[in-house]
Amino acid sequence: MYRLPIFVGQWKELGRVCELVKIARREEAFHETLKNLSIIDHFGFDENLTFQQRYLVADQHWKKDNGPILFYTGNEGDITWFCNNTGFMWDVAEELNAMLVFAEHRYYGESLPFGNESFSDSKHLNYLTSEQALADFAVLIEYLKTTIAGARYSPVIAIGGSYGGMLAAWFRMKYPHVVVGALAASAPIWQFGDLVPCGTYFSIVTNDFKKSGTGCSESIRNSWNAINHLSSTDAGLQWLSSTFHLCSPLKNLQDAALLKNWLSETWINLAMVNYPYKADFLQPLPAWPIQEVCKFLKDPSLSDKFLLQNVFQAVNLYYNYSGEASCLDMSETATKNLGQLGWYYQACTEMVMPMCTDGVNDMFEPQKWDFDALSEECYKLWGVRPRPSWILSMYGGKNISSHSNIVFSNGGLDPWSAGGVTQNITDSLVAIVIPDGAHHLDLRSRNPLDPKSVQQARALEIRYMKQWIEKARRNH
Amino acid sequence: MYRLPIFVGQWKELGRVCELVKIARREEAFHETLKNLSIIDHFGFDENLTFQQRYLVADQHWKKDNGPILFYTGNEGDITWFCNNTGFMWDVAEELNAMLVFAEHRYYGESLPFGNESFSDSKHLNYLTSEQALADFAVLIEYLKTTIAGARYSPVIAIGGSYGGMLAAWFRMKYPHVVVGALAASAPIWQFGDLVPCGTYFSIVTNDFKKSGTGCSESIRNSWNAINHLSSTDAGLQWLSSTFHLCSPLKNLQDAALLKNWLSETWINLAMVNYPYKADFLQPLPAWPIQEVCKFLKDPSLSDKFLLQNVFQAVNLYYNYSGEASCLDMSETATKNLGQLGWYYQACTEMVMPMCTDGVNDMFEPQKWDFDALSEECYKLWGVRPRPSWILSMYGGKNISSHSNIVFSNGGLDPWSAGGVTQNITDSLVAIVIPDGAHHLDLRSRNPLDPKSVQQARALEIRYMKQWIEKARRNH
Repeated sequence: MYRLPIFVGQWKELGRVCELVKIARREEAFHETLKNLSIIDHFGFDENLTFQQRYLVADQHWKKDNGPILFYTGNEGDITWFCNNTGFMWDVAEELNAMLVFAEHRYYGESLPFGNESFSDSKHLNYLTSEQALADFAVLIEYLKTTIAGARYSPVIAIGGSYGGMLAAWFRMKYPHVVVGALAASAPIWQFGDLVPCGTYFSIVTNDFKKSGTGCSESIRNSWNAINHLSSTDAGLQWLSSTFHLCSPLKNLQDAALLKNWLSETWINLAMVNYPYKADFLQPLPAWPIQEVCKFLKDPSLSDKFLLQNVFQAVNLYYNYSGEASCLDMSETATKNLGQLGWYYQACTEMVMPMCTDGVNDMFEPQKWDFDALSEECYKLWGVRPRPSWILSMYGGKNISSHSNIVFSNGGLDPWSAGGVTQNITDSLVAIVIPDGAHHLDLRSRNPLDPKSVQQARALEIRYMKQWIEKARRNH
Repeated sequence: MYRLPIFVGQWKELGRVCELVKIARREEAFHETLKNLSIIDHFGFDENLTFQQRYLVADQHWKKDNGPILFYTGNEGDITWFCNNTGFMWDVAEELNAMLVFAEHRYYGESLPFGNESFSDSKHLNYLTSEQALADFAVLIEYLKTTIAGARYSPVIAIGGSYGGMLAAWFRMKYPHVVVGALAASAPIWQFGDLVPCGTYFSIVTNDFKKSGTGCSESIRNSWNAINHLSSTDAGLQWLSSTFHLCSPLKNLQDAALLKNWLSETWINLAMVNYPYKADFLQPLPAWPIQEVCKFLKDPSLSDKFLLQNVFQAVNLYYNYSGEASCLDMSETATKNLGQLGWYYQACTEMVMPMCTDGVNDMFEPQKWDFDALSEECYKLWGVRPRPSWILSMYGGKNISSHSNIVFSNGGLDPWSAGGVTQNITDSLVAIVIPDGAHHLDLRSRNPLDPKSVQQARALEIRYMKQWIEKARRNH
């Protein structure tokens, strides 16, 4: 088995929070939902079709005389969700007199190049790449600047989180004539090739648990063997199914592997959303959810069944904080939602992020990075082969010092910081580390419980954005 | 009629000079001809085939301990021709201890992605774009650096002329992690959209003739009406055919239009190859060939037939300096050689360079830029539609100041300087103008008859290259 390095947590977040936040911010919802005709293949001329790319505009605070534009480089999901979960942009719009634009990434949300056929085969999926997405953004911005009165000379700043943060950084690198700068939040642009050790990601997850309660990461580390023991008999499988309140009972060793995978994804998700305040993601969660989870996982030396009962309590907090679920659905991390499909394809082509565990520096079962297995799986799934070195050739790997005006922010609690830029490269390629931050906490709305580190990070981010805007004005 | 803005002169040069120069430089020929497996579609994963990309290596002067690499970004033709016509690189190799690499552009020379089928239809032509070519170069350099012992940290400088110069500049803009700088000679990167007036190109051609002899450009300007008068009768057509020693006689007005077109291309070619010394291009030509041609074109007030007899003498000098041709072949400017085919396709897709004449500021018959006609023609020819704004979106148009380490050189006599960068943009985006230079004279071998301006230009180019190499060493 290999791990497809998907940003699973985000996927789970999708669908719910979007609407919740929409209600919470009703008075300041996006101004318009628009669709722009975008060329399906920017890099070839045989296919000359277009598709409707969705984008959202909020111009309540925009100064019409070339006030700046904050442009969210949409990533692997419905753009309304990103729009509603990037409160930071809403929070600074007034201060910067900025227009907000959220552009949906092709093949996600409603921006499907071939409608329902978009995922039907590798031929239809052929235009799902980061390069095509960046070209969409460039052409869209050009279009906005020529059609919105007063926007012709608006400086544009790219903002994105996670894969969207990678896109924001790459956008500035490849299209510096389009965006004057970029805020790349929690963007693991170095989680490729051998740029960073493949195990750091999981050791950060592990550290989050280690720091959140005595015995916590050890309990999880011990749980795998406990599951292995129990799943070797039918009675054990039955016990596991009932103890974990699984909607579909485990039938064999393969199912047990899925259980372990599901648990791993849960711990990873918790590390990503380990926010300092009550938040509504996949499920409503309390502040610092890992601390809450760890309250169940204090004693790693318990016997198998007691240990696993505690593990159940822990995941139950994550999946059933409201107490409404009658059973836990293990297939949830593998929901065949559109975004997940698209990201699987991207992970099978360009977005090859080596990941591994050793069970020593992390609390997971040891698993080497197995590119060949990935390649085979991708070929089976989509008929495509991943090209692991392409992203490095295209975006420069660690050799990016000739670029400028990018702020890379990373949360110390966020496993994705393993592949992020966490040290300044030059005066204008700047790293901001938020020790108490999980996955792009800085992009979220201001909150009274925000740790000081994220407040300072945001202040610094705003300062850089103002500098870029100022400089663009002077140059103009 | 519209003018397909092809670099016609270059096409004519191809094929002959290549071998001549090869002989002249026999003792310093390229070291190896190699083929690298390159991916046909860098920007999509459905097509996973590879093709053999040819490249030439000359490492006689290379310092094996990470000495620099001068990388010629091949343009629309056989790479051996470029290799043999870029004497400047050979001349500086020793001084810089540099390896020379000449990479062939896909779809030209022997680097045909689908062999003989490469030009069969728009499906096979789909991968002929500047973006794919740049990706080839990036991947090839990565490959060279990992496979050639001692080249891992070699700083690479991109060098190219004409379209190859555009590629060199764009390569540095898009892949600054691959090349530390670029020398873009006679690269009309602004001959797109409305960045420069569409008529400047032809007014430069006209000026070359105006400066080269009294009555010269006026004679040419008057020749069009003379042809129009004569071609209105069968006897006149016959007279034209015999006077111009045409291999195929003119039969109708359409043929007469072809004659005018052929003459125009001849004047343009002369402007491009108006070198200060005897040189062997399409035909062997004397030094300052326009001055020679203008000796026949002193009196613009002659009657139609006398004027056109002189025009024949002028073109005869160009096409038949050796005196060996028994007739002149008007189809020569439209030879269906591979390179020309490829460039036509590129002009029909990305490389949309508006051109126009007004007969006032230039010596040509007035002809407006007609995008719609181009588009129709392209659709008929290839089933594709040009996207005139794409190059601007992709490469930034005039808004390129955030890039660095590019020297743009332009010859004052070269019509392509109309679309070139002829003024410094920043400290490290530098323009060098060579007042007495035609099309990328600076890239040619040193010659005792070189004007001082090109000697100074080359010295400055070498200084910049040394700076880039020095800086790369320090950074490493």
